[in-house]
Amino acid sequence: MSISGVHGLPDVRPGDDLAGLIAAAAPDLRDGDVVVVTSKIVSKAEGRLVQAQSREDAITAETVAVVATRGSLRIVRTRHGLVLAAAGVDASNVAPGTVLLLPVDPDASARALRADLARELGVRTAVVITDTAGRPWREGLVDIAIGVAGLTPLDDLRGQVDPYGNSLEMTVTAVADEIAAAAELVKGKTAGVPVAVVRGLGHLVTEADGPGAAALVRRAEDDLFSLGVAEAQAQVRGGTT
Amino acid sequence: MSISGVHGLPDVRPGDDLAGLIAAAAPDLRDGDVVVVTSKIVSKAEGRLVQAQSREDAITAETVAVVATRGSLRIVRTRHGLVLAAAGVDASNVAPGTVLLLPVDPDASARALRADLARELGVRTAVVITDTAGRPWREGLVDIAIGVAGLTPLDDLRGQVDPYGNSLEMTVTAVADEIAAAAELVKGKTAGVPVAVVRGLGHLVTEADGPGAAALVRRAEDDLFSLGVAEAQAQVRGGTT
Repeated sequence: MSISGVHGLPDVRPGDDLAGLIAAAAPDLRDGDVVVVTSKIVSKAEGRLVQAQSREDAITAETVAVVATRGSLRIVRTRHGLVLAAAGVDASNVAPGTVLLLPVDPDASARALRADLARELGVRTAVVITDTAGRPWREGLVDIAIGVAGLTPLDDLRGQVDPYGNSLEMTVTAVADEIAAAAELVKGKTAGVPVAVVRGLGHLVTEADGPGAAALVRRAEDDLFSLGVAEAQAQVRGGTT
Repeated sequence: MSISGVHGLPDVRPGDDLAGLIAAAAPDLRDGDVVVVTSKIVSKAEGRLVQAQSREDAITAETVAVVATRGSLRIVRTRHGLVLAAAGVDASNVAPGTVLLLPVDPDASARALRADLARELGVRTAVVITDTAGRPWREGLVDIAIGVAGLTPLDDLRGQVDPYGNSLEMTVTAVADEIAAAAELVKGKTAGVPVAVVRGLGHLVTEADGPGAAALVRRAEDDLFSLGVAEAQAQVRGGTT
């Protein structure tokens, strides 16, 4: 498996043809490659910039539930089901005075980019759109998959048997998140390389667009941590649990 | 960046010289390579097998706090500071009737393996020992780093400036976890490939062993999610918060 950064992409602007830019910078894309794209440039192409003074309102509009707060920091569940600081609203790598929202529907963005790359280059790739997220209990941020097309997002090994004959009951691997994390190691943050190509995972690339990154969002009723701690406390105080 | 599985390792047994086995199977290791090792084979070499009927007692002994429970499943904080289902006690890929505990001190195991590889092959590699973990809010498991030697576990970009002149205030990347996740894509689960070599990240490989994976464990006082929901509820009920 190899991961290469795609160099030479211009600064992306609202209305840009992202597939055309990527195809020009990575003309050697092949069937089975996974094209990993930082959500920031997808948002820019989609014109998801707002003025910085509207930042708090924008965060509120993207939020369906506040999971935790510290000072002015809000960790929230977004419309997409993602749990992110500031709802993923981002002030880095954008012009001063502006902030960038996540794509409206990252799975739809991934599907469109995949179709456009197929049209431009005649190749069947997968597309993963990433954002950067913190985690409870662990220091540091990692990239995760927020939009997926043409890739099995969860590799389900349940029912398989290990060499000792034990069945693998709990092993469903979030391969799309692992691909997002792997690509971040190459894309970096200040290097200005927002796209990477992962080669060698063709067994995970599918004909159909598939269920997308939506499949990676755990349903609240299945989640032991669906409520943040403050919310759990508030519910207990309010007598609702 | 490339990631290759190390093939041809024998089944590891208590007392085995893991560095010797890896060196024999991967004689082409180079300075700057990151050797990613599934904790399972480290535990096996260290003789961390117990009888399956002692499993619940073993989980209790590895636990410093219960974070959440569902039925008989316990998600706990381990002695190492990791939050893992069943304290990382594992019944897959071991002989029936036995279960495997995590290494006693995975950072120490990583340092020893790194030193032994240097002695065997004369190369300065980094070593990352991995385990598989679930996440709140996300479906599927990903590999994380539980032992690290010779690698910057957290790549701190704070203070750097993006091309627009914005300072990157929140960007500390958990590169050791991203490397663990990336390597899992190659190692797989049933393929019997418990070691992978990541080449191309030499800028993260250090002369000193460094702070290890302990640096990836967020201190409880810094953590908005240090208590699980059930514990938050219990504390509120008990009037301790």
